[in-house]
Order: sequence, then structure tokens, then C-alpha cells
Amino acid sequence: MRIIDKETLIGKRIPKLDARKKAVGEAIYVHDIELPGLLVGKILRSDRVHARILRIDTTAAELLPGVHAVLTAADTPGKPLGHGRDNPPLKGDKVRCIRDEVAAVAAESEAIAEEALSLIRVEYEDLPPVFSVQEALADGAPVIHEKHPNNIPFTYEYNHGDIAQAENDSDILIEDVFKLHYVTHCCMGVSGAVAQFDSDGNLTVYSQTQVPFLYKKDIAPVIGVRPEKIRVIQPVIGGGFGSKLDIYPFEPICILLARAAGRPVKLIYSREEEFIASPTRQPVELTIRSGVRKDGTLTFRDVKTLHDNGGYTSWGATTPFVIMQTISSLYRVPHCSYRTTVVYTNNPYSGSFRGFGNLQATFAVESHMDKLAEAVGMDPVAFRLHNAQKPGETTPQGMVFRTCGLSECLTTASDKTRFVEKHRSYRNGEKGPLKRGIGMASLLHVGGGAKIYRSDGCGTMLKIDDYGHVTVLTGSTEIGQGSETVIAQFVAEELGLAISAVTIINNDSEITPWDVGVHASRTTFIAGNSAQRAARKAREKLLSAAAETLGVPSRELDLRAGQVTRADTGEALLDLGKLIRSLHFAKKNEIVMTSEYYEPPSVPQDREFKGNVSASYAFGTQVVELEVDTETGVIRILKVTAAHDVGRVINALGIEGQIEGGVVMGMGYALSEHLQVEEGLVNNPNFRDYKLITAPEVPEIDMHFIETRDPEGPAGAKGVGEAPAICTSAAIVNALYNATGKRFYELPLTPERVLRVLKSGT
Amino acid sequence: MRIIDKETLIGKRIPKLDARKKAVGEAIYVHDIELPGLLVGKILRSDRVHARILRIDTTAAELLPGVHAVLTAADTPGKPLGHGRDNPPLKGDKVRCIRDEVAAVAAESEAIAEEALSLIRVEYEDLPPVFSVQEALADGAPVIHEKHPNNIPFTYEYNHGDIAQAENDSDILIEDVFKLHYVTHCCMGVSGAVAQFDSDGNLTVYSQTQVPFLYKKDIAPVIGVRPEKIRVIQPVIGGGFGSKLDIYPFEPICILLARAAGRPVKLIYSREEEFIASPTRQPVELTIRSGVRKDGTLTFRDVKTLHDNGGYTSWGATTPFVIMQTISSLYRVPHCSYRTTVVYTNNPYSGSFRGFGNLQATFAVESHMDKLAEAVGMDPVAFRLHNAQKPGETTPQGMVFRTCGLSECLTTASDKTRFVEKHRSYRNGEKGPLKRGIGMASLLHVGGGAKIYRSDGCGTMLKIDDYGHVTVLTGSTEIGQGSETVIAQFVAEELGLAISAVTIINNDSEITPWDVGVHASRTTFIAGNSAQRAARKAREKLLSAAAETLGVPSRELDLRAGQVTRADTGEALLDLGKLIRSLHFAKKNEIVMTSEYYEPPSVPQDREFKGNVSASYAFGTQVVELEVDTETGVIRILKVTAAHDVGRVINALGIEGQIEGGVVMGMGYALSEHLQVEEGLVNNPNFRDYKLITAPEVPEIDMHFIETRDPEGPAGAKGVGEAPAICTSAAIVNALYNATGKRFYELPLTPERVLRVLKSGT
Repeated sequence: MRIIDKETLIGKRIPKLDARKKAVGEAIYVHDIELPGLLVGKILRSDRVHARILRIDTTAAELLPGVHAVLTAADTPGKPLGHGRDNPPLKGDKVRCIRDEVAAVAAESEAIAEEALSLIRVEYEDLPPVFSVQEALADGAPVIHEKHPNNIPFTYEYNHGDIAQAENDSDILIEDVFKLHYVTHCCMGVSGAVAQFDSDGNLTVYSQTQVPFLYKKDIAPVIGVRPEKIRVIQPVIGGGFGSKLDIYPFEPICILLARAAGRPVKLIYSREEEFIASPTRQPVELTIRSGVRKDGTLTFRDVKTLHDNGGYTSWGATTPFVIMQTISSLYRVPHCSYRTTVVYTNNPYSGSFRGFGNLQATFAVESHMDKLAEAVGMDPVAFRLHNAQKPGETTPQGMVFRTCGLSECLTTASDKTRFVEKHRSYRNGEKGPLKRGIGMASLLHVGGGAKIYRSDGCGTMLKIDDYGHVTVLTGSTEIGQGSETVIAQFVAEELGLAISAVTIINNDSEITPWDVGVHASRTTFIAGNSAQRAARKAREKLLSAAAETLGVPSRELDLRAGQVTRADTGEALLDLGKLIRSLHFAKKNEIVMTSEYYEPPSVPQDREFKGNVSASYAFGTQVVELEVDTETGVIRILKVTAAHDVGRVINALGIEGQIEGGVVMGMGYALSEHLQVEEGLVNNPNFRDYKLITAPEVPEIDMHFIETRDPEGPAGAKGVGEAPAICTSAAIVNALYNATGKRFYELPLTPERVLRVLKSGT
Repeated sequence: MRIIDKETLIGKRIPKLDARKKAVGEAIYVHDIELPGLLVGKILRSDRVHARILRIDTTAAELLPGVHAVLTAADTPGKPLGHGRDNPPLKGDKVRCIRDEVAAVAAESEAIAEEALSLIRVEYEDLPPVFSVQEALADGAPVIHEKHPNNIPFTYEYNHGDIAQAENDSDILIEDVFKLHYVTHCCMGVSGAVAQFDSDGNLTVYSQTQVPFLYKKDIAPVIGVRPEKIRVIQPVIGGGFGSKLDIYPFEPICILLARAAGRPVKLIYSREEEFIASPTRQPVELTIRSGVRKDGTLTFRDVKTLHDNGGYTSWGATTPFVIMQTISSLYRVPHCSYRTTVVYTNNPYSGSFRGFGNLQATFAVESHMDKLAEAVGMDPVAFRLHNAQKPGETTPQGMVFRTCGLSECLTTASDKTRFVEKHRSYRNGEKGPLKRGIGMASLLHVGGGAKIYRSDGCGTMLKIDDYGHVTVLTGSTEIGQGSETVIAQFVAEELGLAISAVTIINNDSEITPWDVGVHASRTTFIAGNSAQRAARKAREKLLSAAAETLGVPSRELDLRAGQVTRADTGEALLDLGKLIRSLHFAKKNEIVMTSEYYEPPSVPQDREFKGNVSASYAFGTQVVELEVDTETGVIRILKVTAAHDVGRVINALGIEGQIEGGVVMGMGYALSEHLQVEEGLVNNPNFRDYKLITAPEVPEIDMHFIETRDPEGPAGAKGVGEAPAICTSAAIVNALYNATGKRFYELPLTPERVLRVLKSGT
């Protein structure tokens, strides 16, 4: 008798299913796609930031041998794209920022394409430019888009409670202004697309989009092809981080070139183009006023933000949705007011970027939490714990914290670092130029999707072959976050199989069922639930067939290691492959196919931005220990201790990777990354001058998983993709204050800035 | 108010969905596949027909620059392949026929691969060859396979009734011997495969197989890869006709080369190789004895056949399964005996070929039917009608004819041609060397699959996108027969959509659910039923959602032209896309996904070869009118009138194509096609010497569809893929007899053979 113990894949360290393919060079990125007759597409961009286009002469380019298509705005359907629908794929009337696309060519080689671009003559009439929010809001400012004569495409206003009353109730009030800068995603795989029409007019786009199904809908009018005629195939994506959430002009340009040329076209950015013409994180100027009572109870937050929208509206303009969540609900905020003005300028425009405004919000909120704690004479931990929500609370914004590990994150991160003790001793200072500091910051983020569309769901179709190998067709998209591995875990877990027995198909909109796309840290939660439920249906079919075969009630059976076993003793009763084959060939002539569409029990926000927009919320606390050389301004991060409420660990290796990557991204935001936009130009479009954190600078990262077991999450999990990047920069400035007594309101903390602040005494 | 009349796609003339792609050159055949690092594979074949392999020296080939792998039998797992599991992919001990594979190379170009083959030295010891069934059965004949010292791998015996008694009951007995020759498929796309391993050891084969799921199972041991690690992708297949039903050595060779080289390998036949090393139609020597009573009642058939199996056993050896059906059940046969001996020789071996033995059987049976009719003084039509089954009959072999259009086929074909009148007048002869004749023959074939495996089923998964576009994942394979078009029709019909609203995915075993494969004219019937039922489930979901939205009972609703309508008046009530989007986004957050596994209600034959092996049976009668020049022996087919019981016409254009193609294939079998095998060699491996019927020789084909509306068939359809090829050659010899008074027992009816028979007087 063979006994198989119950084992679980949940919480194990599982290498990503695509890791080996990526490591050995087998992964097919968009750059690797070859098709018969493939042409090279290239874009001519504006060489000024605000100008009227008087004339474009493409004659010489069209005559160049090897050129198959030359496009200007006149050759497009004329519909704008992007989240704000204000961005024509090719600009015909005017240009509004340095990345603006004015013409494009498809040619037989990159050299010919570049020569063709050089032959296109564009005549401009310069317009007065606007390089800051303040300039754009000034009376008589040049107008960027005629539709918005005040240069304000969006405003947001959120309120709960009564700020005036809260001010009266407060013993201490503080107000500060924080200025957050431009950074960009720096995906290792630059942007690109391949487009091909067949002779029936069906379009196949090989796209890096994170949202293939929204993509079909949104790009359709821009290219004049009905959405059902568009097939989106996603090659392996070399990093997304939100940058592929919107559609940017290069994609319709590539498609329109393919149609014009009658041949497939590949359009791939250079690295310089990637820096200049891919989205950024939204720069924000944030004025925050907070109050507190002497007993340490937070009374209110009153926040106003100004967003530099750049020349067009992509997702960056919508970061207030997330910013206001942190303003209203990171810790108990009895009264809250939040106002945002989004302002067009002639700067580059911003998109979605991991954290989606939350890095900016958390930087301000957690800086203020430290200041408030100090003001009432409490240590940072005690102050935060005093104001932290407990499981079961609903915030005034309507977010329901069915589980909430915030307090546990705080105590774990502080206990593991002896935070209070170190914080006190560092503050008292050390001799010499090297100062040590410790700082903490927490975060709140959606952890169960975000119902910003009418559906936040994900579809799964599943089949099992005659050998017990499972194919899962999921709508969800893998952008490197490890979702296909987690989905395979859920399925393998339900069916008692090795993870190698599961193949995930997730890259072809013609084949996979709908999903809203990768955003809001939703894939493990939503696609995981969908896949788990589809697998559970398959499990039920198999156990019921096994029960019939074995004469044992199905509730007494389990699936383990490819066998049907007794649930109690683990006794192996029947090989799963044999059961499947007997179901297929001997008994009922059935094969196992199931499907599931999972929609989370969240609701859209109402007109006041209130409502339980996510089925779950993630929390975390990071403690940073650093050393700063007060003579050079150089900061060395010594250790980051990260305690994250992940609901439940599904793939430990995956979460470790997310935390490592998030912390490093947060460090880059705080310390070194800066897309230097001056007078609308990008001054450092390369990795020499745009400084990412690299391996030697990565500190020890001590991770602690707070498992609150979300009742709705698959196996208890919450989404955790974005969270680890969110509070690192706030913890760093808090630690820097602890070390130096100086507070920093702007990033990045370059040695120059650190020295300047230290020396200036402000 | 918009009124939409009920329209149907069933029976319409629908161009094949893949027609345009094929016509404009967009279709991707295996020949077109390019992969990074792709190598060219080539096979070294034996230059003798029966020999022991003493030594193979590959040293020089291995040293040739650009060669990445050289394989001999020693490099293979040693498991044989093919239906008889007697055919090692590379031969190590001995060679048994001219196509035998002894070594293979993978190299960077075809030229290098060919040079490498020329450097391989094989030392043979010749063995005495056997070139005919008679030689192989003689005492002391050389043994081809040690496992079968008598050279007989298979025998078949079938009986019903009592032949001795039947002979006593007969007034007339006749006996003849028919000899059927070698022909081959002549697919326009030659054989080939591309194989690629990933670094996880997963294999992707781009294969032309007609049976992807059986392929995985069957090739697994031959290549030493577990079936669940094999993904079969079927590029567009340039003709199958049964030739891709078995696995032939080139496929495992291609795969093993890819593994040895560590790079993908493409192995494509030359046209000469295609003639020499792809399967043939089984050559058969058939002795038939039939009896009849004076009143024209058939009393018995007693048939013995000898099958030249060639050097190995592929599907050709199993044609007796189909031959015996026609022997036992084409017309009422009260007593029947059938015996087959399958005999190894050193000739090329045969595979499955459209009709699968039925051309040979029908040639003999229908020649005899004419002889018997003449012997009892009846006209061919009256004699056949007298013996034809009626709907509802079960034949002694157990075939249940729930519908049977045989009599109607006979009367339609004869009425439309004024058969009896012409037959009488032609027989009386014309003056001059040009003689006209008319002849008829009928056929019986499976029309609802054939349960020769434990499942004869097909799986479907279906999803509908937000715009009402349907994706159908079907296990069935398109080999040019038009199945994807018919499947799309069934689905579009159920859902009231245009056929362009349906995409069929049918070429990737990882994605599509199981199907037994393309054979036995089963795809319209089985895959059609499966798809229709999956679509019906989707229809029910949609109508029930519409009923809820509209407050109208779903039975009063219909789906027409992309609208939900009233079933009675056709009043358009709701756009289907809107309904789907409201279901997805507004109401229940559901998307439409369904699945179905259809298993036909047929049973495997018992040990006596009895049982209702197909869910339906197809019938047909063809009348041929020809002119023969008695001075040159040249036959000109003037007209073919084909009346086929198709159950119900689904795609009229598709059936017309099948009938045209079948008649032309039958004409080729009768008149011109002949793979000239002499002393084991193929003497005419090219289209100059192997004469296909070409367009100028194609006569008028007058088609009549007998719609018997099969109760189990989808929309009443029966399978009709193979049928039209089956009885043409029999009708031709009967017409030739009518014209000349000479009966032909061998094919093809080349001018030389015709003249020889006419002159010899026999």
C-alpha cells in the first residue's frame, strides 16, 4: 500500500515557469519576431516642444528606394488615443512636447528608414512654451489644447468629515509642501510592436500591452479596424511596471504603416527613444496639512496636489484615485479633504507606474507621520500603532478592511530592527561625518483588484489531457510579475499535480477569455481566483468519477501526486492518468474541460470617490537603516526590513522577488533616479546619466510575511505586486532625518541635494 | 420596427474560410516555417530492397563543417513505429524496401546536408528479395521480418450466413479475380516536419499529421519523450487524403535530429522522395465469387483477398476492415464469407488513402453486380434496386442504416442520365472506332465516424468576445476538406451570426481539446456535432439572458443577424453585442464560455467484426458516360453523374468540391495513375511519368444531393469526404464494358491495356 502524504505547493519557493527560457535566451520578445516580408518602422519626432505644424513634405522620403510607406496625420483616421483621448497618433495641427510624432516610415531596413526620416521636411511655427504647472496656470498662459483653455483637463475633489471642526479639535497643526520628480520605468525590453494584416483585413498585433482586451477596444477607432478583427498576441514582455497600460502613438503608427505598406511592420524603440518617448511617473507638487491631538490621535489631513500632466493625458492623470486612498485611509483619518488639479504643460507626459501615485502620496503622508509623532513626543512606532486600523474596519472612504495586518507589519518591522532603541540612539548622534539613521514608513494599497471598469474580472478555460497534463487558458497577462507561475500553482494544488503538469496559455486574445489586464496588483487575486475555481470544478469532476470507480464517497477522496488517494490515510487508490483515460475511453467518453469567470465582490466608487473598490487591501511597513556621509552627501542603505501583509504567501520566491524589486525601485526613486526634464527636453536619455540602483548598492533585505489570510483571496492571498515599491522612499527620508535632523521634501536624495540641505541648514 | 427574416447558412455555398489565405500565398505551410537557428534535416535511404546492414560509417559526415548531427539506429530509443509497430525510424539490422532510412543528418544548409549524406558509407550484405505476394507465400521464401517467418503479419476472416447453402440456393455463380495496383496520394504539399526542443525538454513538432492527439501518444515511445511533453502544431496542410494518418520515419528522425543538434530542424521531402517514401494505396488481389437467383436476388459473396503489405505494416494493412463492409453490406448479401491474407514483401508499403480499401472492394463488387445483372437478364439499375437496402435495415454485419438513400441515389443517377435507355443502345454498338458506353456503380461508406478506437469523439471549447465574435477551439483537423468552414457554419447558425464572426482554432494540441483525428469521413459529423452542441449551450445562455432583460420567455426569442429577435415575427429586440456586454459588464459579470465533448452512439466491432461501428452510413451512385477509341485505346470520360446521400447539405460548395475531387481521384485510379513498382523500385517518381488527371480531362460532373436527414447528424448531415472517390472506377469499367463488350479486371485503363484487351479478345 502506497501512502502519499498531503503536501502543498502554497507558500513554497517555486522558480518562475518562464525563468529558464529567459535565462537561456529562448524567450521570444517582440524584438525577436520575424515574419516574411517584415519591414522596419521608424517615427519622426518633433524637434520642438510647442509649435504649429505648417507643412510636412514627405516627397523625397517616398521616392527613396526601399521605402514602402510614409505616413503623416493626413493618412490616419484622425481619432486621438490615450486615456484622455487627446493624443493623435500622428500630429497634424501642432506639437505639444518633445516626443511628438509627426511622420513615420516603413522601409526594408533600419538604415533606409532612418534615411527616409532625414528626408522629411517639417515646417513649424513656434508657439510660446509652458514648462511648469505654475506657468500653465498663470493668467494669459499659452493654451496647450484648445479644448481646455485653462490648461486644466481634470480636477479631483474628495472630502470626508469636516476639516474646520478637525482643526479646532487639533492640538498641533503642521503643513508642508513635497515635490516629487520625473522618473521612468526603464524596462529592460524597450517598447515595440509588430503589426500584420491578412488579406481578409484581420489584424494581428504583437504587442507588449498589459491589457490586451482593453487594447482591442481602445485602439480600434484610432486605426479604423473593428475590435473583433484585432488579434493581440503578447510576446514575452521585457518589463511592464505599468508602462504598457495605455496605448501610445507608436502602436497605431506601426499598425497604420503595415496597412499602408501591405506588409508586416516591426517598430522598435532605441534606448534613447525609450527614455524620451515612453511614459514617466507623474510629477506631483503636494501640499499637506495634518493635525493631531496631544494624545497622538490624528485628526485630519488636508491635501492639495498639482500634477504636471505634460502635453497629453495618459494614465498619469488618474493617479489621484490612488493618492486619495492613501491620504484618506492610511491610518485612521477622521477628517479629510483632498483636491487635485491636473495641468497641461509642454513637458513629457506620464503614465501608469507601479504604485500609481502611491509613492508620491506615501512619501508625503509618512514624512508627516514622523513629524507629527515627534511633535507629540511619541516614537514613530507607537504613534503609528495608535492610529492604525484594525481588521474589520471600514474607512470613511468606504474601503472595507476585512483583514488588516497594518499593526502586525508595524510591530514586526520594528521588533526585528529594535527600531525604537536605534531611533533614539541614532537621533542623539554619533561623532564624525558618518551618521546613521533608521526610519520607517507604512503603506496601504489595493490588494484585490480595483473596480475602475465595469468588470474587474478574469476568465479561465481549462482542459486536461489523457495524461493528466493541464492546459489553462487565462485572460491574465504575464509581464514578469510571475503570475503564470502562481496560476499554475493554484491549479496544480487543486488537482494534486506537480507544477510541471500545468501549461499556462496567456498571450493570445483570440484564444484566451477576457481579463481587464495587469494593473492594481490584481492578477494573483483575480486571475488566481478564476483559475482556482476552474480547477476546482475539474477536481470535482475527477473525484466524482473516482468515487464511482472506487465505490468510495468523493468527500473521502483526495488528489495527491498524480494519484487519487484516501483523504484520511493518503492511501493511493488510483492513478489520475488512468482515471482520466477511463473517463475518456471506457466510461462516459468525457474529457475534463471547465471554465470560470471570476468577478471580485468589489464595487465602483461613487461620485464622491467612495466605495469598496477592492476586494482586499494590502499593507506593509518597511524600516530602512542607512548611513550618510555628511561631508559628501552620499547615502548608503545598510538594511531594509520589510514586513508585508500578503494575505498568504503563494510563491515565496515570487514575493521575495517582488519585495526585492520593489525596494530597489523605491531606493532608485529616493536616491538616484531622475529623468531630467528641462525646458521640455530630456537631458539624460541613457543609462550613464539616468542612474538606476545596481546590484552593488542593493542592501540586505530582511523580509517578513504577515499572513492575514484574506477570506476572498485565492488560498488567502492578497495582491502584492506594487506594494513593496511604495513606502521605501518615505522610510529613507525618515531615516535620513533620524541621522541628520534634516527633513527632505524633494527627491532624489543625490549627494548634491543632501549636501545642499545639510549645509543650508534648511 | 426592424424585421429580420429567419435565414439559414445550412446548405448555402460558403467559400472555405482559408481559401483566400491559400490563394494569395498567406497560408503558412510547414515548408514556410522559419525559426532561429533552424537546421536542415536529410535522410539517407537504402539503395537496395533487402539486405543486412553490416556497418555504417558516419565519421566523414560528422567531420564536415556545418553538420550538427548525424544519426543512425544506434542513436534512437530503438522502438519501432507505424500502425504495425514493425518499422524502426532508422534501420539498424536490415533494410526491407527501397525507402528504408539508414542514417540522417542535420546541417546548416541543404547543400551541406546532402554532401554529408554522400559521405556516409553503408556496408550491406544482400538478402534474397521478394517482390510479390506469391513469392512471399512460397515454401522457403526469404523471411522479411523474423517475427513472422511465414511473412504473414495479419489475416482477417469474416462470415455471415452459410456459403454452402447459399451456393445451393443460387441459380448462377460467377467467380473472378481483380487486381488493383499501386497509386499514391500526390499531395501538392510534400511531406515535412519541423521539430524544436526547449530547454525544459518540451518538444514542439510542426507536423502535418491528421491525428494530432494519437500522434502524441504514438510517437512518444519512438522518440523517448513523454506524450504530455509533446505539443503538436499543425501548419496549413497541403493535402492529406489519409497519407498523414500514420507516423512515418521522417518525423521521429526530424525530432531526434533536433534533440541531437540542440537546434530546431526542418526536414522536407523532395518531390521524388514524396513518390518513393510516402505511403501508397494498398495493392490488392481480390477473388470474388457471387451467386444470384433467377429472380435477381443476390445470394452470397465469397471473397478472398491477398494484400501486398510491402516491407512494413502501416494503415494499408487494415483496409480489410472497410473492404469487408462493402463485401458484406453493399446491397443485401444474405450469405458472406471474406478472408484476407496480408503478406510482407520487399515492396514499398501502403497507408491510409481516401476510401481506405473501398475503391478496391467496390471495383470488384460493382463489376460483379453488372455481370450478375447481365447473367439474369436484368438491367443494372433494376438489379441493384432489387437488392438495395431500405432505411431502417440492419445488415448482417450489424450496420444499422437508420437512413439509407441507396435506392434514391440509384434512381436519381439513372433517371438523370436516361441510363437504361442509353445502356441498351450503347450495348448494341455504334459504327466506327469510337464507342460510347454508360456504366454505373454505387457505394457504401461510413458516414458518422468509425469507432475503431475506444473513443471516436471530439472536444470543443467556445468563447464569445464582447462584440459577438466567437472563437471555437476544436480538436478537429483541417486538411483541406473544408471542416473549419462547416464547423463555423454550425456555430454561426446556432448563434444567428455571419460566418465571418467565427474563428476556428484547430491546429495546436496544447490548446485544443482531444479529437481522434481526420479519418473515416468523420469531421463534419463528429466535430460538427461537438461544435453545434457547444454553440447551442452558448445560445441557451444568451437567450436566457435576453429573456431576463426583455421580459420575454426565451422560447419566444431567436438569434438572427446579430440581433435577439422575436421568434415568430422576427422583430429585432436587442443587439447581440449589447446583450453580451450587458451580461459581462452590467448584469452578472459573465462571459459566454462553453464546452462539449461529443461521442457518437456507435460501438466497436466485436471479435467477428460485427457491430454498428458508425453512427451513420453514406451511399452514392455514380454514372459514367465515356467514349473509347478502339483503335488507340484512349478513353474519354464525357460526363459523370453523381447522386450522393449526404444526409443534408451543409456547405454546398464544399460538397461540390469533395465530389469533384473524388470523381477526379477515382478517374485517376481508373485511367492513368500508377505508381510503377518493379523489383521493389519506383520507376516513375515524378509528375511526368506518374499521370494525374489534369483540368482539361475533367468532364462535366452533374451532382445530385440526396438529403436523407440523418437523425444523429448535425443538422442532418452525414460524412461525405471519402465517398465520391469510391465508385468512379467501377462505373468506368462498367461503362467500358457497355461500350466494348470487354470486361477489365485490372487498372489503370491505359490505352496500352485497353488496346491489349480489345485485341486479345479476353
